[in-house]
Amino acid sequence: MALIVKKFGGSSVKDTERLLNVANLVTEDYAKGNDVVVVVSAQGDTTDHLIEKAKEISEAPSKREMDMLLSAGEQISIALLAMAIEKLGFPAVSLLGWQAGFKTNASYTSARIKTVEAERITSELSKHNIVIVAGFQGINKFDDITTLGRGGSDTSAVAIAAALKADLCQIYTDVDGVYTADPRKVKNAVKMDEIEYSEMLELATLGAQVLNNRSVEMAQKYGVELEVLSSLERKPGTIVKEKVKMEKMLVRGVACDKNVCRFSIIGLEDVPGIAFRVFNSLAKSKINVDIILQSVGRDGTKDISFTVPEDQQQDAENALESLKDVLKYQSLIKDNKVSKVSIVGTGMESHHGVAAKMFEALYTANINIQMISTSEIRVSVLIDEKDTDAAANAIHDAFIK
Amino acid sequence: MALIVKKFGGSSVKDTERLLNVANLVTEDYAKGNDVVVVVSAQGDTTDHLIEKAKEISEAPSKREMDMLLSAGEQISIALLAMAIEKLGFPAVSLLGWQAGFKTNASYTSARIKTVEAERITSELSKHNIVIVAGFQGINKFDDITTLGRGGSDTSAVAIAAALKADLCQIYTDVDGVYTADPRKVKNAVKMDEIEYSEMLELATLGAQVLNNRSVEMAQKYGVELEVLSSLERKPGTIVKEKVKMEKMLVRGVACDKNVCRFSIIGLEDVPGIAFRVFNSLAKSKINVDIILQSVGRDGTKDISFTVPEDQQQDAENALESLKDVLKYQSLIKDNKVSKVSIVGTGMESHHGVAAKMFEALYTANINIQMISTSEIRVSVLIDEKDTDAAANAIHDAFIK
Repeated sequence: MALIVKKFGGSSVKDTERLLNVANLVTEDYAKGNDVVVVVSAQGDTTDHLIEKAKEISEAPSKREMDMLLSAGEQISIALLAMAIEKLGFPAVSLLGWQAGFKTNASYTSARIKTVEAERITSELSKHNIVIVAGFQGINKFDDITTLGRGGSDTSAVAIAAALKADLCQIYTDVDGVYTADPRKVKNAVKMDEIEYSEMLELATLGAQVLNNRSVEMAQKYGVELEVLSSLERKPGTIVKEKVKMEKMLVRGVACDKNVCRFSIIGLEDVPGIAFRVFNSLAKSKINVDIILQSVGRDGTKDISFTVPEDQQQDAENALESLKDVLKYQSLIKDNKVSKVSIVGTGMESHHGVAAKMFEALYTANINIQMISTSEIRVSVLIDEKDTDAAANAIHDAFIK
Repeated sequence: MALIVKKFGGSSVKDTERLLNVANLVTEDYAKGNDVVVVVSAQGDTTDHLIEKAKEISEAPSKREMDMLLSAGEQISIALLAMAIEKLGFPAVSLLGWQAGFKTNASYTSARIKTVEAERITSELSKHNIVIVAGFQGINKFDDITTLGRGGSDTSAVAIAAALKADLCQIYTDVDGVYTADPRKVKNAVKMDEIEYSEMLELATLGAQVLNNRSVEMAQKYGVELEVLSSLERKPGTIVKEKVKMEKMLVRGVACDKNVCRFSIIGLEDVPGIAFRVFNSLAKSKINVDIILQSVGRDGTKDISFTVPEDQQQDAENALESLKDVLKYQSLIKDNKVSKVSIVGTGMESHHGVAAKMFEALYTANINIQMISTSEIRVSVLIDEKDTDAAANAIHDAFIK
């Protein structure tokens, strides 16, 4: 007898068949005597359809009204899932974000959860109801609906698990767990039984789309044990926890991210404050800069290169163009045919030569490295986009198999 | 400068073009210095689509979850209308039923409004926002979402108008006002400039679908002046108020209702208590019985005939079949090829011969009357469904033209 939080994404509830499948999964655990809270996203493409409707009316709809609009998506899916569970003969009650006690800050479309006041959920559990909660949404101090941004339902699930001190938070997806690399791209990729929060966080941040990185951060902070598993197959997934007991592999995973654009600002004056001006301006435009490379000054000039997410390339370009007169650079080069390949593993902290081994694998595969970035548990390289799969396979085989 | 409540139904907001049309109508009045509150229904067929989704999962979804599901429809339309108004450069804020202060009783799918706690609406108006409220929905004492049943958005609008003591409550529809009869069926039907609450109430109850009868009742109770007008044409509609000043016509309107089924219970024992048992049983099954006709007893037996709405015919039949052994009737006859044609007018209270004139018109048109029912301001007859339009024209011409 445990308290289990289960989260299902949009594809897991996209139609009646999938909803009934989820209802079966949920009621099996309930029938064993567990308390079950279910967090669901909007069905399939509902969110995209709603966004289309909004864009038809206005290119720039207000964020408050976008949240009002989009939160209707989860409202539909929680009601339908409750009906499916009741159809199987089990008691269920659906709750919207505000009913479930999700209080957020006021940042429409990308709100942060401040607290989950879980009295209503607790009360419904004590009545032996299966509680179905709308993910992705809450209310702010004005009693207005906010959404947590894409992938926010993972965070909703972890926040409930933390508030209720749940025994386990299961995140159901299309895949059966976390792999050492994308199994569609890297032929020797293997599923991991366990992975540590910090490793999962790096992988999530680096483009492994299996978990939203804010949800992993929150799980780590509150010690919520996560399981990533498939909603279509009945088998154990990957457990995400503080410390993995099994013998450590040096490298836990290889992640690839093609959503990268590289900028190079050529011929900047080699004087103090130049880098500050560049990145301060990008920060003001809310652009997430990732890898940064600055050349050594020569002939009184230097170059600065950095990467940004592909969908922010236009904003970044605008910001840099507007600085042209101030910075007096010679030229601006943009390249979005690049990708970032990373290795992650807490084991590498205490091992030398991990980066060298990675570079060797790339060299052997005849792949050119454009930029490098490292952290304690991660090494990332920027390469030509067309080499992505070859690089992932070469690196994976060097470390994991 | 006035406070105006405007209500738009699903067809008035069914797509982007219609939403922008509504936004124009609303902002015109706002630009003149009026405070404007807008109540909207779900877009076009949204509610029907959601009902279909529910029926796919379960033949009998729970009413609580139906309300959770259906109320998402208005949530989508209020957000989109707010975006459309903002697009035109005016300040707007959308509010769900619970945000707008709609407190209802606990009857899911057919809740009654208990109060409208309008502080939020008042506060948004004082900030000079155009306030857009989701019709059809509220919350009960459990903080759960309830809906008011089909047509409930009219009632939402009148309730807000009453709570805010609005100067006018405009109900926008596909037609440009209230007619003396359905203009698609009765060639001489004319639009009325004004009509009294009591007359409108009879017409609404009798099948004139222009206004929901609960909303008319509420408007009368709180003295809310209503205007029924077209969302597509810019011209005055029909004002519904307590007393119409203009010289009264004897008959104000002719209404037809084909959604009628007649039952005849033949050969009931002619003893006391039989009618009580029949109608008590129907009441317990929540069936709305309309016209009742009981034959004079003969040979120790009598017949009882009555009408019910067509969509309740199966429930009524079940209730009566289950009584067969108790009532010992000889046979049960059901006929849903009937319709009810009514005339309405406060003028007829003080005039004799109104019913006789109606019957004469039907006789002249060679239409057989099956049943008759009268009130102080109404006469209804049940006739063969195929004669409906002919009857409406004959009666209309006898009284109104």
